[in-house]
Amino acid sequence: MNSKIAGLLLTVTTICFGQNNPNQTAHQMIDFVNPMIGTHKMGHTFPGATTPFGMVQLSPETNNVNMFADGKYNPDTYKYCAGYQYDDTTIFGFSHTHFSGTGHADLGDFLIMPTTGKLQLNPGKANEPGSGYFSTFSHTTEVAKPAYYKVQLDSYNIKAELTASDRVGYHQYTFPKSDSAHILLDLMYNIYNYDDKNTWVFVRVENDSTVTGYRQTNGWGRTRTVYFAMQFSKPFASYGHKKYDKTPYKGFYGRFNEEENFPEMAGKNIRAYFNFKTDDNEKIGVKFALSSVSTAGALLNLKTEIPGWNFEKTKQESQQKWNKELAKVTVETTTPAEKETFYTALYHTMLGPILYEDADGNYRGLDQNIHQSEGFTNYTVFSLWDTYRALHPLFNIIQPKRNNDMIKSMLAHHDQSVHKMLPVWSHYANENWCMIGYHSIAVIADAIAKNTTDIDLNRALTAGKNTVTVPYFDGLDSYMQLGYVPENKSGNSVSKTLEFAYDDWCIAQIAKKANATKDYETFTKRSENYKNVYDPFIGYMRPKLSDGKWRENFDPLDTHGQGFIEGNALNYGLYVPHKIDDMIEMMGGKNKFSNHLDQIFTIKLADKYIEKNEDITRDGIIGSYVHGNEPGHHIPYLYNWTNKPWKTQERVRMIMNTMYSNSIDGLCGNDDAGQMSAWYIFSALGFYPVLPGSDQYAIGSPMVKAATLQLENGKTLKIKTVNQAPENVYVQKVTLNGNEIDRNYLLHSEVYNNSEITFYLSSKPKR
Amino acid sequence: MNSKIAGLLLTVTTICFGQNNPNQTAHQMIDFVNPMIGTHKMGHTFPGATTPFGMVQLSPETNNVNMFADGKYNPDTYKYCAGYQYDDTTIFGFSHTHFSGTGHADLGDFLIMPTTGKLQLNPGKANEPGSGYFSTFSHTTEVAKPAYYKVQLDSYNIKAELTASDRVGYHQYTFPKSDSAHILLDLMYNIYNYDDKNTWVFVRVENDSTVTGYRQTNGWGRTRTVYFAMQFSKPFASYGHKKYDKTPYKGFYGRFNEEENFPEMAGKNIRAYFNFKTDDNEKIGVKFALSSVSTAGALLNLKTEIPGWNFEKTKQESQQKWNKELAKVTVETTTPAEKETFYTALYHTMLGPILYEDADGNYRGLDQNIHQSEGFTNYTVFSLWDTYRALHPLFNIIQPKRNNDMIKSMLAHHDQSVHKMLPVWSHYANENWCMIGYHSIAVIADAIAKNTTDIDLNRALTAGKNTVTVPYFDGLDSYMQLGYVPENKSGNSVSKTLEFAYDDWCIAQIAKKANATKDYETFTKRSENYKNVYDPFIGYMRPKLSDGKWRENFDPLDTHGQGFIEGNALNYGLYVPHKIDDMIEMMGGKNKFSNHLDQIFTIKLADKYIEKNEDITRDGIIGSYVHGNEPGHHIPYLYNWTNKPWKTQERVRMIMNTMYSNSIDGLCGNDDAGQMSAWYIFSALGFYPVLPGSDQYAIGSPMVKAATLQLENGKTLKIKTVNQAPENVYVQKVTLNGNEIDRNYLLHSEVYNNSEITFYLSSKPKR
Repeated sequence: MNSKIAGLLLTVTTICFGQNNPNQTAHQMIDFVNPMIGTHKMGHTFPGATTPFGMVQLSPETNNVNMFADGKYNPDTYKYCAGYQYDDTTIFGFSHTHFSGTGHADLGDFLIMPTTGKLQLNPGKANEPGSGYFSTFSHTTEVAKPAYYKVQLDSYNIKAELTASDRVGYHQYTFPKSDSAHILLDLMYNIYNYDDKNTWVFVRVENDSTVTGYRQTNGWGRTRTVYFAMQFSKPFASYGHKKYDKTPYKGFYGRFNEEENFPEMAGKNIRAYFNFKTDDNEKIGVKFALSSVSTAGALLNLKTEIPGWNFEKTKQESQQKWNKELAKVTVETTTPAEKETFYTALYHTMLGPILYEDADGNYRGLDQNIHQSEGFTNYTVFSLWDTYRALHPLFNIIQPKRNNDMIKSMLAHHDQSVHKMLPVWSHYANENWCMIGYHSIAVIADAIAKNTTDIDLNRALTAGKNTVTVPYFDGLDSYMQLGYVPENKSGNSVSKTLEFAYDDWCIAQIAKKANATKDYETFTKRSENYKNVYDPFIGYMRPKLSDGKWRENFDPLDTHGQGFIEGNALNYGLYVPHKIDDMIEMMGGKNKFSNHLDQIFTIKLADKYIEKNEDITRDGIIGSYVHGNEPGHHIPYLYNWTNKPWKTQERVRMIMNTMYSNSIDGLCGNDDAGQMSAWYIFSALGFYPVLPGSDQYAIGSPMVKAATLQLENGKTLKIKTVNQAPENVYVQKVTLNGNEIDRNYLLHSEVYNNSEITFYLSSKPKR
Repeated sequence: MNSKIAGLLLTVTTICFGQNNPNQTAHQMIDFVNPMIGTHKMGHTFPGATTPFGMVQLSPETNNVNMFADGKYNPDTYKYCAGYQYDDTTIFGFSHTHFSGTGHADLGDFLIMPTTGKLQLNPGKANEPGSGYFSTFSHTTEVAKPAYYKVQLDSYNIKAELTASDRVGYHQYTFPKSDSAHILLDLMYNIYNYDDKNTWVFVRVENDSTVTGYRQTNGWGRTRTVYFAMQFSKPFASYGHKKYDKTPYKGFYGRFNEEENFPEMAGKNIRAYFNFKTDDNEKIGVKFALSSVSTAGALLNLKTEIPGWNFEKTKQESQQKWNKELAKVTVETTTPAEKETFYTALYHTMLGPILYEDADGNYRGLDQNIHQSEGFTNYTVFSLWDTYRALHPLFNIIQPKRNNDMIKSMLAHHDQSVHKMLPVWSHYANENWCMIGYHSIAVIADAIAKNTTDIDLNRALTAGKNTVTVPYFDGLDSYMQLGYVPENKSGNSVSKTLEFAYDDWCIAQIAKKANATKDYETFTKRSENYKNVYDPFIGYMRPKLSDGKWRENFDPLDTHGQGFIEGNALNYGLYVPHKIDDMIEMMGGKNKFSNHLDQIFTIKLADKYIEKNEDITRDGIIGSYVHGNEPGHHIPYLYNWTNKPWKTQERVRMIMNTMYSNSIDGLCGNDDAGQMSAWYIFSALGFYPVLPGSDQYAIGSPMVKAATLQLENGKTLKIKTVNQAPENVYVQKVTLNGNEIDRNYLLHSEVYNNSEITFYLSSKPKR
């Protein structure tokens, strides 16, 4: 499909969108998305309903391995980071918050489960039929679309449908005839559940169909509070709850029967239920709004976004939001499968960061105070060690306004931070400090380099400088003193040194734009620190001790305990994106470096090197190249800096073909909040941001036949190919508006423009 | 002292109040107050610093019996309801929130303790010297005045001084020379401490002298959150904290040394410390602001109320607030001791309810949302089963504007209540449901009867009706069906029936004023329900079962398990204040009733009847009359309804003389949030509100020689006596503005006026 047709289709679907049009055959953009991709194995995506960047992400939970493990870590927890695994045959309910693709589990707030028959409040065990409220289900009844999810709960003969607006989940349950129908609200369920994760739960039954409350948890997000307002389309006949606290709060002097029809519930571990009588095929709707501020905020969100009871209308409005976002990129592919892979990847780039403010602009800040987002929209869920690499650069092309809001959210986080630090990993008004570095700086530098932000340069510079000079942060004091992080003071020291040095370069770029010459010089100098961890004798980056000696017993292939986090010296040791030429020189020149890259892709990484590492699995590995994790995402493009750019073209096509697909296990590792998918989108379009913070994209080899990007500045980028075919992975020449370019990079000003970029492809490399 | 002199003195003290006036000899009103009264035995008052009705009540903690009792109830907890017992010789620190005189323990938020030498974070045990951070002290170094407390901490040679503004505690510690001085912030300390009482604690070290945070607890107040902002007058040299959680939160990947100089602390059980080097006699000030809203609110309160660092200025300003409030009543007494007893009682009537909003009018409501107090000032701590009897009626004379604000706070509570109930016991944005009935209604009816409130009558009526018709409340469904609470359905059934019936009468009075005839009739009828629990065969109120039969095995003297709460049939059975004549008739007429009253005061209540009851102690008993607890507070005045009013005069003087004094054990039982003291103030002035909700006061026998009340309407009530002497307890006649009155009650319109009421006293009763 060429872009004109795609544009036309969008217009058509917009016009013919009414539910009463049985003849509608035109495709919508959402038809190219399959949210099931990545739900098998380690993609850690979820199939449920959400809007683009929506605050509510309402999705089924098949997680059952993880209830009350006596506080001990259950290794299967990792498997359930998004609450759903395609292998499972049981559903425990539908909860409203999820991370997409992360390598650490959290959220799962407010599990709703409809049942019939004898009231069961215990979730039960999947392998013991009837042991709890869970239901069996079959994938044959399952439909997963953007903003829509449907499944038949076989144990109860209930059809469950889900949709969502930005801040409100909308459940629609079609019951059989029953005198004993229930909708459960399990406030104990958490993704990554353990004893004592809930710090407090508070519920008010405001009237016969409205319930409000909040839950506070601690864990990955240390002090997380989520407020809710819940509304049923039909008054419940009765309700109640049970507490599962070891020493439940008893404050009522035994004066009430708290457990039944008493409109207040409080404690740490509570499961509530609402009883109904239903006719056959009776639909009961549940609207469930979230807020970070208060129950009043949740009620506001509920009333503002979904005032009525028209499930189809909400679904269609939210699907139109998806159509609009997805239509920003229209592609023509060789196969339908590639199109589905592409659009699902694009979909996955819009599940995080998420909106994090109420309809009135109030949100909970990092200081736990309530703030008003003045002049921006507030976002959270910044998994920055992952997403600065390609996701935020992608936003600078297709979501620049939103990315600017995200940057302003980061600056607000800095202002609210007691450390005066930009986010490392922003997590629902918490800093969870996950992974290394402080890559907000890269995101900001990238937007400044690409001229997509209107933030004050001095404010950005100050925030960056504050961030990179906090002495107690993660080896930073030693880094500032010695020019490297010593392994004996702070683990994963080489990774830290490399990422710190890159971030220093980013600050230097901001300083340059702000005409802060001294800062520019200081941080340019700091950005050379990568050299301090290179051992020229062995030819690898290597952990150094505080006395200046290299760490002994060093194995450059091991991904564990060798100075690198989620990587080894072979891969992660190449992370000097800001000084690639210098690094290549340091490592012995282009040929030697090119051989090093070849080694990576051809020598099989032994099992022993990866078995201790959850984030690196065999599925995501080519030779020793680990695509399933981030530190190597730039590596295939590094051939561009050698004399063999054709190897980049070959490798990126190979990676796209083998590490991504439109099947349920179509992601070779955690999608990591969209970074893996963003890598794919860029690579499929033929270029990649090897160095965020610069205005350059390394040229690869496009997978698409053609693409059209509708840019927010009103311009249109057209990407075309000549001779596109699976075997024609090599780029013979690239023309920009008809003129051949004699370099292997594109500039942002060329991409973010009325440009036509044409890739001439061939089955033979241009050596 | 007559009122002119008192007025003059106030003027003089106002003028000469500068700290640099060494010749100042004139008394201030605060000089007549001794906050130590009631700190011995069961008065449960605290000696610390606060303003009238202030949000911060900063007081020493001698409580040491109660740390981590494995969740089990420690009977000594009751002793430490206010955190301080005069017997103790050790101080564990100074905390910012206290209840005055309650019979249940809670609060004790944010314990500050200055120490020197080796850092100790464990509080230790009082009987093991050096086992913790506590200090020994001697009462000889102690000074307790309104808004000022001073003590020498002998273990560290530190002088501790405390004062407070409305929302900010101000500590001033004079240290010896030390290289190792510490100020501890113990966030684990609670009055009524137990494992798991803290649900969450969050602390931010904002800079080298400012700390913010909050603590959430559950317990008597189910979901209580108190925010703080703390400022030191001198930057600390270093700081740190330790967590005492069983499974402490570990979220930082071991990346930080969280324990030292790391500016965030979070968990359930935390003790923080701040280190200083001090010169000899160096003073370090600590300002500690509270908020129910947020740390931003606490910072606002801090900056608004105490911007500078002048301890003496804050102390003097707050003491002037006390002088102003205390000067509303000037009395002349027979002895200085009586004056001290009187003014300390008056002081104790102004320690609750307390202000509960920030400087900008924001406060946390019962629904946990943040509200703005529009058109009123918000208050909390309504211990209404106690305080509706005499404390709020007293406010209707000397604090009507504040009482009106309290009523508006109660209505706001109703509006925020999921039950749509007026407060039973309002407790820091919580309803703790303590004790029986719903006596906000009495407070509102009383203010309406006395014309001291501007609330809308229909709003009050609706709130009242909502409150008394909640079917699941405490036996109310049966009460509505059967006309009494059946003992087999809901314990303490007779007390409940009597208090419900009285509250029904109060609603009827509101309905009458609102011209709601039907409601008036309905609730007048309900108010007769007291008759349904009177057993004419035995001549006592008696618990009845749901089948209409009397409960067997009934003992009218036992205070436990006989249908009465904190009382017995002999005493509590007389609680029909709204129909005293009818009750007397029902019980056999005036003579028989008078004999019943005589019995109460003369027959000794056997130990076995009171030993199970914390709230009834031998100290507070005359015969079988229990003055140390509320249900009998009207009893001495009931002789007025017989032919022997002189016995009322005799008894009230006896009670004032034996149950109150100016010594440390000068309260015969819990002051109960000011109710015991309010009884004293009324009785000392010669009259008492036997029936709140009416405009009548029963005449007793004044203890004062003379009194002048400066009323808020600009008028002045003068009370005079002729022949006042300890033995002249009998009233021969009472004149109102020179005219003898031929009744034994006064009207509010007579009291709240430019009146002169003269009591002619004699040693012989007027029979």
